Amino acid sequence: MSKPLRVGVAGLGTVGAEVVRLLARQGDLIASRCGRRIEVVAVSARDRLRDRGLALAGIDWRDDALGLAGDPRIDVVCELIGGADGVAHDLVGAALGAGKEVVTANKALLAHHGTALAEAAESKGVALGFEAAVAGGIPIIKALREGFAANRIERVFGILNGTCNFILTAMRDNRREFRKALAEAQKLGYAESDPTFDIEGVDTAHKLAILASVAFGTPVDFAGVHVEGITQVGLIDIDFARELGFHIKLLGVARVTEHGLEQRVHPCMVPIAHPIAHVDGSFNAVVVEGDFADRNMAVGRGAGAGPTASAVVADLIDIARRQRLPAFNVPVADLKALPRASMDRHRGAYYVRFTVVDRPGVMADMTAAFRDAQVSIEALIQRGRNPGDTVPVVMTTHDTEEAALGRALARIAALKSTREPPRMIRIEQF
Amino acid sequence: MSKPLRVGVAGLGTVGAEVVRLLARQGDLIASRCGRRIEVVAVSARDRLRDRGLALAGIDWRDDALGLAGDPRIDVVCELIGGADGVAHDLVGAALGAGKEVVTANKALLAHHGTALAEAAESKGVALGFEAAVAGGIPIIKALREGFAANRIERVFGILNGTCNFILTAMRDNRREFRKALAEAQKLGYAESDPTFDIEGVDTAHKLAILASVAFGTPVDFAGVHVEGITQVGLIDIDFARELGFHIKLLGVARVTEHGLEQRVHPCMVPIAHPIAHVDGSFNAVVVEGDFADRNMAVGRGAGAGPTASAVVADLIDIARRQRLPAFNVPVADLKALPRASMDRHRGAYYVRFTVVDRPGVMADMTAAFRDAQVSIEALIQRGRNPGDTVPVVMTTHDTEEAALGRALARIAALKSTREPPRMIRIEQF
Repeated sequence: MSKPLRVGVAGLGTVGAEVVRLLARQGDLIASRCGRRIEVVAVSARDRLRDRGLALAGIDWRDDALGLAGDPRIDVVCELIGGADGVAHDLVGAALGAGKEVVTANKALLAHHGTALAEAAESKGVALGFEAAVAGGIPIIKALREGFAANRIERVFGILNGTCNFILTAMRDNRREFRKALAEAQKLGYAESDPTFDIEGVDTAHKLAILASVAFGTPVDFAGVHVEGITQVGLIDIDFARELGFHIKLLGVARVTEHGLEQRVHPCMVPIAHPIAHVDGSFNAVVVEGDFADRNMAVGRGAGAGPTASAVVADLIDIARRQRLPAFNVPVADLKALPRASMDRHRGAYYVRFTVVDRPGVMADMTAAFRDAQVSIEALIQRGRNPGDTVPVVMTTHDTEEAALGRALARIAALKSTREPPRMIRIEQF
Repeated sequence: MSKPLRVGVAGLGTVGAEVVRLLARQGDLIASRCGRRIEVVAVSARDRLRDRGLALAGIDWRDDALGLAGDPRIDVVCELIGGADGVAHDLVGAALGAGKEVVTANKALLAHHGTALAEAAESKGVALGFEAAVAGGIPIIKALREGFAANRIERVFGILNGTCNFILTAMRDNRREFRKALAEAQKLGYAESDPTFDIEGVDTAHKLAILASVAFGTPVDFAGVHVEGITQVGLIDIDFARELGFHIKLLGVARVTEHGLEQRVHPCMVPIAHPIAHVDGSFNAVVVEGDFADRNMAVGRGAGAGPTASAVVADLIDIARRQRLPAFNVPVADLKALPRASMDRHRGAYYVRFTVVDRPGVMADMTAAFRDAQVSIEALIQRGRNPGDTVPVVMTTHDTEEAALGRALARIAALKSTREPPRMIRIEQF
């Protein structure tokens, strides 16, 4: 048996502690699969006194995580601190600079600095593993980089944030408005006390930018992601969706169009006939469409200690087995920057909901706005009557360019009868 | 760029031809991902004159596939002939013996000779790739071997045969009896003219034995698989299933119980709340339950030229990237033979359907048989009345041992009122 792979773990939060626990519990199993042991030789965290239920005897404790980067007894630094910058960034940079392999679960770090870090890893011939950064328990980075390596990827999309999926599922199944469902998610531990990054779509955007880079061989371009969260989705939209044959999911979608790389995160109407419509609760799902493999969907836990630790250790096992591939599937020098496809040029079908005064002539004004913008209406629903007061009116469109829809919506928003800004949700086509 | 990986393709049927086509079409893309080209330098097939729409200029033609094994210009032999024995077996054996890497899509070959072939590959330090042998377009072998390598696998199961899934879906959605649905599947090209291996569950069993070996680190034991096909599933069962909240799927299920390795292929009642219940038509799905990763499901095309070629070439790409792992995840010497868990010891819930004469006392006789076998009835349905003539009676049981259920069914089968052998379908629990 070869000599052990020696790991330094930075950050002993939920995930870090579980990684240490997993490596201890499955030591023999992993050794039989790798031909060598994977051993935690050093750890670093802020609070040495906290009881994490871990046996840390014989493991070096370091108050300063950065010390791991220079420790000659460490082969791999496992960065589980989090955050796009600060200590996490410094540590990963220093570790790679010192020629150490790095495994991280840090999506923000990768989304902001992925290409530069990949370059640093490459120049030292070491691995930069980040399976745990996207869709935790689903080995999707490996699938894209290796399992589907024979394919030109046509589209990659998914439910990448368990908090949002939990909230949208609770809204639908328990008929809750967004705020109530969010409070519920927080009580159950599915949402953090500051849920901004999740509900505003930022976390999904981090993951999407990473997926897009691996799938399309392009530098990570987080700033190019169009991001909308779920805070504007009403229970009324979920009800209309169901009536129209859709479930609403927060999707991250990336594809290469004639206008360039389209990366977008927003609530989507998903036809109930598509299996991703049935991925509920805190589960994640990623769909890969390849030109030979056709459509593949992987469903699993997107977060949580166990699934994330499983992904972190899978990366460590790859390293222990001496399997190293370029972080984004091709060497950094071969990554091809693509123009950003503007959302104005996005083509698709749309769901729009208006809140208008129920009086004669309103429908005529609205449909005229669509006609003049050359947007073709597929369906129009006005449930109930409420003469003189407001009613919701829902329309779905045929395939159109987003800029054209924007013109119609702007005109309708300015109508005297319109009482709330129109709400738009894109209908994803499969 | 390193020197090209030179491939000899044996068998130019649907899959073989598509592999040649894929490598030609994606040559540059694959080279950018591997750092070297993958080139087909020789092919072999029975009929040289058949027009396959392939550009074979510059590629050696060999009438005798075995010649590929000894050809010094070939690095990898790609076996796409099929069949557990005969030429396919001879070729793979000879190629490995000559120190060539081998990639195959041949599940029958692996199910029957997997362990011996893995040993041959190991002794020469070459790869034996078979991603395409199980669930075509789903990279499940890689996921088990690498993505979930940090996990003790608790259960692996799936819909592994698109023909059966197509037939069961057509029975349910178009209200067809089995024979009609099979004829339809044959007309549409989803079933072969001799569909025996598919509908009798043998194909699923081949794939399950391979999955179990990789998942549990045990020698391939195809002979230990309990196999039932779908020929006995009636439309009436599908209707009752739906009423009880189930869809019927042909599953292959493998897990390690206290009695040993349980490997079984049979129609299953799957609760509609489980996402695998919604994998319809010719799609395949594999669920992996790991002790850290939790439940993961992958859905994709199980067969067809494109998805299978995608998997074959993924294996070639692994070889081109010099990523070689033991075929069944650990070296053959470390595979641990497990006792076969007898189906008699299987514990689970059951659906049973009886065809009995509708007369007083029948129910009492039947329920007494269950009571005496100590099998607890969960539900009992007798729809409609037909005094003096036969009626279907359906029962579902609580958790029980299969041997006990067998005793109850034997006694009921012998009742004077019983007109057809009782039908039993296992209810899979999640």
